[in-house]
Amino acid sequence: MSTSPELSSVWPLPVRGPRYDRADPALVEALTTVSSATACAQLHQLGITRTFVAGPTPLVPGHRVVGSSVTLQFMPQREDVASGVAQEYVERTTALWAVLETIQPGDVLVIQAYGRAYTGCLGDMLVRYFKRKGGAGIVVDGRIRDAPRVRQLGVPIWCTGVTPHYASQSELFPWAYDVPVAVGGVLCLPGDIVVADDDGAVVVPRATANDVVSRAADHEEWEVFSRMRIDQGAVLSEYYPLTADSRAEFEAWRDRR
Amino acid sequence: MSTSPELSSVWPLPVRGPRYDRADPALVEALTTVSSATACAQLHQLGITRTFVAGPTPLVPGHRVVGSSVTLQFMPQREDVASGVAQEYVERTTALWAVLETIQPGDVLVIQAYGRAYTGCLGDMLVRYFKRKGGAGIVVDGRIRDAPRVRQLGVPIWCTGVTPHYASQSELFPWAYDVPVAVGGVLCLPGDIVVADDDGAVVVPRATANDVVSRAADHEEWEVFSRMRIDQGAVLSEYYPLTADSRAEFEAWRDRR
Amino acid sequence: MSTSPELSSVWPLPVRGPRYDRADPALVEALTTVSSATACAQLHQLGITRTFVAGPTPLVPGHRVVGSSVTLQFMPQREDVASGVAQEYVERTTALWAVLETIQPGDVLVIQAYGRAYTGCLGDMLVRYFKRKGGAGIVVDGRIRDAPRVRQLGVPIWCTGVTPHYASQSELFPWAYDVPVAVGGVLCLPGDIVVADDDGAVVVPRATANDVVSRAADHEEWEVFSRMRIDQGAVLSEYYPLTADSRAEFEAWRDRR
Amino acid sequence: MSTSPELSSVWPLPVRGPRYDRADPALVEALTTVSSATACAQLHQLGITRTFVAGPTPLVPGHRVVGSSVTLQFMPQREDVASGVAQEYVERTTALWAVLETIQPGDVLVIQAYGRAYTGCLGDMLVRYFKRKGGAGIVVDGRIRDAPRVRQLGVPIWCTGVTPHYASQSELFPWAYDVPVAVGGVLCLPGDIVVADDDGAVVVPRATANDVVSRAADHEEWEVFSRMRIDQGAVLSEYYPLTADSRAEFEAWRDRR
Amino acid sequence: MSTSPELSSVWPLPVRGPRYDRADPALVEALTTVSSATACAQLHQLGITRTFVAGPTPLVPGHRVVGSSVTLQFMPQREDVASGVAQEYVERTTALWAVLETIQPGDVLVIQAYGRAYTGCLGDMLVRYFKRKGGAGIVVDGRIRDAPRVRQLGVPIWCTGVTPHYASQSELFPWAYDVPVAVGGVLCLPGDIVVADDDGAVVVPRATANDVVSRAADHEEWEVFSRMRIDQGAVLSEYYPLTADSRAEFEAWRDRR
Amino acid sequence: MSTSPELSSVWPLPVRGPRYDRADPALVEALTTVSSATACAQLHQLGITRTFVAGPTPLVPGHRVVGSSVTLQFMPQREDVASGVAQEYVERTTALWAVLETIQPGDVLVIQAYGRAYTGCLGDMLVRYFKRKGGAGIVVDGRIRDAPRVRQLGVPIWCTGVTPHYASQSELFPWAYDVPVAVGGVLCLPGDIVVADDDGAVVVPRATANDVVSRAADHEEWEVFSRMRIDQGAVLSEYYPLTADSRAEFEAWRDRR
Repeated sequence: MSTSPELSSVWPLPVRGPRYDRADPALVEALTTVSSATACAQLHQLGITRTFVAGPTPLVPGHRVVGSSVTLQFMPQREDVASGVAQEYVERTTALWAVLETIQPGDVLVIQAYGRAYTGCLGDMLVRYFKRKGGAGIVVDGRIRDAPRVRQLGVPIWCTGVTPHYASQSELFPWAYDVPVAVGGVLCLPGDIVVADDDGAVVVPRATANDVVSRAADHEEWEVFSRMRIDQGAVLSEYYPLTADSRAEFEAWRDRR
Repeated sequence: MSTSPELSSVWPLPVRGPRYDRADPALVEALTTVSSATACAQLHQLGITRTFVAGPTPLVPGHRVVGSSVTLQFMPQREDVASGVAQEYVERTTALWAVLETIQPGDVLVIQAYGRAYTGCLGDMLVRYFKRKGGAGIVVDGRIRDAPRVRQLGVPIWCTGVTPHYASQSELFPWAYDVPVAVGGVLCLPGDIVVADDDGAVVVPRATANDVVSRAADHEEWEVFSRMRIDQGAVLSEYYPLTADSRAEFEAWRDRR
Repeated sequence: MSTSPELSSVWPLPVRGPRYDRADPALVEALTTVSSATACAQLHQLGITRTFVAGPTPLVPGHRVVGSSVTLQFMPQREDVASGVAQEYVERTTALWAVLETIQPGDVLVIQAYGRAYTGCLGDMLVRYFKRKGGAGIVVDGRIRDAPRVRQLGVPIWCTGVTPHYASQSELFPWAYDVPVAVGGVLCLPGDIVVADDDGAVVVPRATANDVVSRAADHEEWEVFSRMRIDQGAVLSEYYPLTADSRAEFEAWRDRR
Repeated sequence: MSTSPELSSVWPLPVRGPRYDRADPALVEALTTVSSATACAQLHQLGITRTFVAGPTPLVPGHRVVGSSVTLQFMPQREDVASGVAQEYVERTTALWAVLETIQPGDVLVIQAYGRAYTGCLGDMLVRYFKRKGGAGIVVDGRIRDAPRVRQLGVPIWCTGVTPHYASQSELFPWAYDVPVAVGGVLCLPGDIVVADDDGAVVVPRATANDVVSRAADHEEWEVFSRMRIDQGAVLSEYYPLTADSRAEFEAWRDRR
Repeated sequence: MSTSPELSSVWPLPVRGPRYDRADPALVEALTTVSSATACAQLHQLGITRTFVAGPTPLVPGHRVVGSSVTLQFMPQREDVASGVAQEYVERTTALWAVLETIQPGDVLVIQAYGRAYTGCLGDMLVRYFKRKGGAGIVVDGRIRDAPRVRQLGVPIWCTGVTPHYASQSELFPWAYDVPVAVGGVLCLPGDIVVADDDGAVVVPRATANDVVSRAADHEEWEVFSRMRIDQGAVLSEYYPLTADSRAEFEAWRDRR
Repeated sequence: MSTSPELSSVWPLPVRGPRYDRADPALVEALTTVSSATACAQLHQLGITRTFVAGPTPLVPGHRVVGSSVTLQFMPQREDVASGVAQEYVERTTALWAVLETIQPGDVLVIQAYGRAYTGCLGDMLVRYFKRKGGAGIVVDGRIRDAPRVRQLGVPIWCTGVTPHYASQSELFPWAYDVPVAVGGVLCLPGDIVVADDDGAVVVPRATANDVVSRAADHEEWEVFSRMRIDQGAVLSEYYPLTADSRAEFEAWRDRR
């Protein structure tokens, strides 16, 4: 079946979203020491309640990344418009190849793939290319393939599993990039900041990043203090979270340092 | 938290896709007597393999609809850009209200809502309005609310369940319309033809509709013949599907009629 | 294996929670005309966000009930303390039989059964008894049995399915009553008000019932007005939800009636 | 790809199991008035604990069937041995067409299809043929298609849902018949007795049927008595289940009748 | 919304169950070398069939713990009685902080959290405190947070995953302690013995622990013998499990040692 | 309950399938360097679309195996025919013990166990025996037990998890061997070739193995070339997949080597 000309003109693939600015590098830098747990908690206090990308876990435990999001969206495969049936070697013309060409140092690629089991969104060759471009990490609400080789590349990846299927082998097809994506129940816009570690990936809306940074700094600082006191034998509820008394004690300790 | 001005300018909601043409009314008409099972089987023979919208079932058994698709896409709710927290009565400015204003007689509204349990994409008032506009039916990969009243309206609806939650009460937010949607593992473009009955909803890509119509006509005709023969005591494998012999017999019977 | 005497003394079954007051009959009465959808939405506005008992659906479509909750909690079966293995005819001494003796006219029985497939929490004989006691309805986060007979009894029931298994046949055992229960992701305390209809069951915390009633009355009233205007050809967003203008128009209409 | 000759010789399809005897018609007859709930409970007392076919529900509520099982087993489709790719009109040569030719009056067809969503194991034409052969009912651990027409045929069917896909359209392929099958977590051998009603389907192993019949007769009789007493105002635990006292009272009542 | 005084008086949080005795340290000691697999199998032989806590897996492979259970129960969060909305820093007054104060050396904390994805029942600070109190291990039917830091603490933990959410951030709230809990389909009473290793966690009812110990000792001893024989080239079925002959051979071998 | 003699004669357990030939050792050898991802992709190109055994993951990351399949099929346990209730030490007479006696060096055991959580299909002793027989690896669509010891044995195993339950402890019973099995949505015949690594297990139908080998050799060779070019700074779409130009370049490079 040949691709319908009329469809191609309405939906020329790949779809690319509007231009956007990457997240402020200073904010990314400032979030580098913030855990996903702290980011998620502070966002909750700021009124942003859906930030944890439920599903993807680290391919290699211990990895961690913070960076500006670049987005890629898969859609269900359909042989008349979005599959490799219509033409040979179609993959290289898709949003998947296209988005990789746009990767800049520090980017975190965020992929909407519906957590499906038969789509290996990225494999050895593509992750290799991503790494060469300077990509910092990848969050896939779906699977990857070539796990043995990909692990060796050392790029931090969060995914819902692995599979020997390649990206457009069956269910899905790379459709659009630089567009908003839905990953693990969370909205991610291009240029948001992703904070991911062993607890999972959290999307920090760029408009909130400044607030998160300042709150997190205080939070992580008093946790150091509380941890110390607890190790010294203090009662948990007196130091975690801080009470008015222990807050004062903490501030004195902090200012003394 | 106020909506970030910069975000609003990049992603002014609601997003509306490019203009498209509705499906040819003659094709819609021609598919009116075709079951979703026959449409799905013929599409499979034509090489289109993902057409069954898995998940949604008819709200009222026995309903059936064929029409040109109008699409609506929900995204995860996020308080800084896509929720009712930022401003009061925000729902009326969303893609949900907007898409309803575009409904034309015979349209089938197809909604991407990820099968989530806490989002009642449409309720009594919105379905009532949809009906007044001449809407023919609704396929939701998600839930609806106000089931008792909605059932009385008589609009054919396929959904994954019901819930007392309203559309933007918690998880999701109406984001875009007139855009490609992913529903139950199927890609639906605006202007495709939806055929839905008790077996579920099937998306007929517009480029294939003509072929489906001609194949279905033959198929449904010989099934009448086979059914007759089976009722008369024939052996199943001789008449279903037709053999070369029974095909000849069928054609003679058909031409005699 | 005999039941350990020491265990029996610590956990004499059935466990019964502290005394509590049933919900104010006037509030129950006032909620009789409120849909679960309206109750859920108003509770959300009041800041109570988990009220929809996800899972159970009506055994017979069209049923509806409002009443004060009586609670029953199953626990996993364990042969040394909570099963029929230790003694014959043990079921009659359980929390299930006990709670039925406490049913008063208008009560809604709410059962925590973890949505399990192999436990028919109630069957014909027990529902019959419940009805004779004046019970108004039953919400089970789990299954029931004897569906053919139970349907004939006409007691409104919400459940996650049916099964031929009896209550203590395999997985679970009736453990406690008059205690807080977790049903479909919602906390229900004895004496809360349950509002259930085709959209599902909603728990109205008793402390909020008064507020729900007053808000729902207004809401359902202006919906009558909006419905009328929409049927008359109004634009959806001007009448649903009400704008400042249409609110004024509604109030004039209301006061004229 | 052509079918490998060597494979065809090892696994000539369809596979047919060894000859077996159908269940004793007198036992089938005796179970006609026994509910699936009573059968399941009595089997549990007899030490047979996995009898409830979890998953399939009645296509039309209120249907009921008791009969001797005939079995059909699907396997995953594989293009080199078990699919329609290798030859045209292959379905008619499969175990599905073959098993229908063996149907005798009163048979219940039990189908292992792994609860999959994209396989409509039976449709209008095949159920029609099944009915003409005198088939009594069908239990599918999977889906059927052509629901609107199938409902009209009036054959009692338990299934996990409906789909427009035909039997060998995608995932599965009819592989064997007259073999043991695993359905909804239960082993069903050819010639077992299936009891199915609104509570679901129960497999009564033929070796236990006699015991089930005699136990069920007593059980259903005393339940009539208990139901009467409860309707007359008795205390639940004194009549359900029977105590030594109420058992004596029941027996006197029974003998008086 | 303020907490209703009347509710607070009926359900003053946190709920604490009745006093109980910890498991006999000698029994705990005796079970130290018993695998969860052996414990589970021996309990099955003793007639206790639901002992495997399905769901939680070890946070760090290779960990192992045996200890007396201390229990904690979460309930769904509800803003009028059980959430942090009503007052600031409410967490420190909950059952979660309270139960940690009761930890004694060797305790295994067992937490009912319904396997939910958005509740990190424990994080770095709380596990740190648990460790300081001498806690031996933790079994959570739910998730934990701060995985990177928690792993470093070295406390053996079984959980269903990790999440950046804190304990009362969204779905659930710490409700009660020292009460029976339902974890992964198993009933756990305070003072039962938990045996957990790479195969998962098993609850040994305290009344059965003595029997388990004596049976396990024999079992693990003959397995040493069988393993030796199999390594020497014996036929599997002659030495695993032991036959009458190989039992005799084993006993001779054992007595010679 | 004793086993019915008539059933035993119809279904004498264990069932053993017909004789078959193991896969050609030369083909197995040739596939030794082929990844599961490459095998799966090449099979897809050859028209075999269901080859990835979805579900099982490696017990120990980094393991890899290629070998001829030996199959084992579990069925639901039923006390009258297939459980240990009828006789003591019944396990040793089952298909599980029987299949282990047939293991030859290089075999990969493939087990159909429906992904169930309460069946530990194999434990330390059985895997130990399997290893002694020269077995190369195991793919279980289900769980294993004794994980700590099994890991030490070093046999590559793919499974859906671990459990302390032994093989016939509850749900399932070893029923047949040397028969076709359904594992993770894939058909596996005895004598197929299994290729398993960190991406999962793939079934290579023996009739296709020759084609897979020749295609994979070319594929893996040009990937080496492409990887080199990409590392050298080439544009992704010019070298992955190969274009006509880069194909020529590759061939020149290859021939030069």
